Amino acid sequence: MTEQFYTMKEAMIYSQRIAQLSKALWKAVEKDWQMWIKPYELNINEHHILWISYHLEGATVSEVAKFGVMHVSTAFNFSKKLEERGLLAFSKRDADKRNTYVEITPKGKTLLDEMYENYHDTPHSVIEGSRSMKELYGKFPEFLDVMAVIRNIYGDDFMEIFERSIKNIDESFTKNE
Amino acid sequence: MTEQFYTMKEAMIYSQRIAQLSKALWKAVEKDWQMWIKPYELNINEHHILWISYHLEGATVSEVAKFGVMHVSTAFNFSKKLEERGLLAFSKRDADKRNTYVEITPKGKTLLDEMYENYHDTPHSVIEGSRSMKELYGKFPEFLDVMAVIRNIYGDDFMEIFERSIKNIDESFTKNE
Repeated sequence: MTEQFYTMKEAMIYSQRIAQLSKALWKAVEKDWQMWIKPYELNINEHHILWISYHLEGATVSEVAKFGVMHVSTAFNFSKKLEERGLLAFSKRDADKRNTYVEITPKGKTLLDEMYENYHDTPHSVIEGSRSMKELYGKFPEFLDVMAVIRNIYGDDFMEIFERSIKNIDESFTKNE
Repeated sequence: MTEQFYTMKEAMIYSQRIAQLSKALWKAVEKDWQMWIKPYELNINEHHILWISYHLEGATVSEVAKFGVMHVSTAFNFSKKLEERGLLAFSKRDADKRNTYVEITPKGKTLLDEMYENYHDTPHSVIEGSRSMKELYGKFPEFLDVMAVIRNIYGDDFMEIFERSIKNIDESFTKNE
C-alpha cells in the first residue's frame, strides 16, 4: 500500500535528511536553552516541566511527560526536585484520585517571569540564524511543514497545548507592557 | 541594531516556538533512529560517526565532531570503540601530522549497507507522519526554512557535507538497483 505513492528509497533518503536536520537544529536549541537557564540552576527537563505546568495551569504528571516529550519517570523525578525547591506543588483531586497533579507555585511563577525578562542576556543562535529570513520575508519562519509532521506524530492535542502555551507567553507580555 | 526590525518579545516567542518544535521533532527522530540501529549494537553517536566517515571518505576527528554536532571528545571516544570492533580505522597523514584521521573499514561499510537494506524493518514515525504531505504535494517536505537557519548557524561547509552525504546515499542505491 505504502509503495503506491513513494519508493522505499525515496522515503529512506527523506528520513535520513530529516534526521540530520533535526539533530543539528535541536543541538543549537539545546545550547541556547542551557545558557539561558544556567544562572537559575535548572536543567532543561526541570525548566520544561515548570514551563508546561505554568501554561497548562494544573496538569497530571503524565500530561507533563507527554507535552514535554519525556518519560513519565523523568517527569516525575524532576517534578519532585522542583517541589523540594518550592517551585512546584503536587496535589490529588477528589474527582480523579488516580492521578497526581502538578501546579506551579507563586515562587515558580516569579522565577519563570524573571527568566523571560532576562531572556536576551544570553545569546540565541536560533534567533541570530533566522534574522536574514526575517529581513527577507518580513517575519520569522513558521515551519508549517515541521508542525504538520509533529501534528501527525503526536496528535492534535499536542499541537493545541503547544499553541496555547505560545499564546500565553504572548498575552502575559502584553499584560506587562 | 537588532531592535530595528523585530521586537525582543517577537524574537523570544519565535525562539520558544522553535525550541518546542525542534525538541518534539528530534525526540521522534531519535526514537526511530534507536529502533533502527538497535539490532547492530550501536548507539546514535557511534552510528553517526560511521555514517559521516562513510560519506566524507576520510575525515579528521574534528570534522566528524563538527558534522555530527557532538563534542570532539565524544567523537574521539566512540571512534575508538568502533576501531576496537574493526569498523573504523585511525590514521595519520604525512602532510598533516597534527590531526588524526578516521576511515570506515570494509567491514564497517558492509555493516552500513546491511543497515540501509533493513531500514524499513523498523517503524519510522517521521516517514509515517509525512505521508499526508507527500499525498498532498506530490513530494516529501523540504524544510527549506529549517535548512536556511541551520546554514546560518553552522556555515556553508556544514550544508555542503550534508548535501554530499544525502547525494551519496542516493547514488549508492542507484548503483545497486
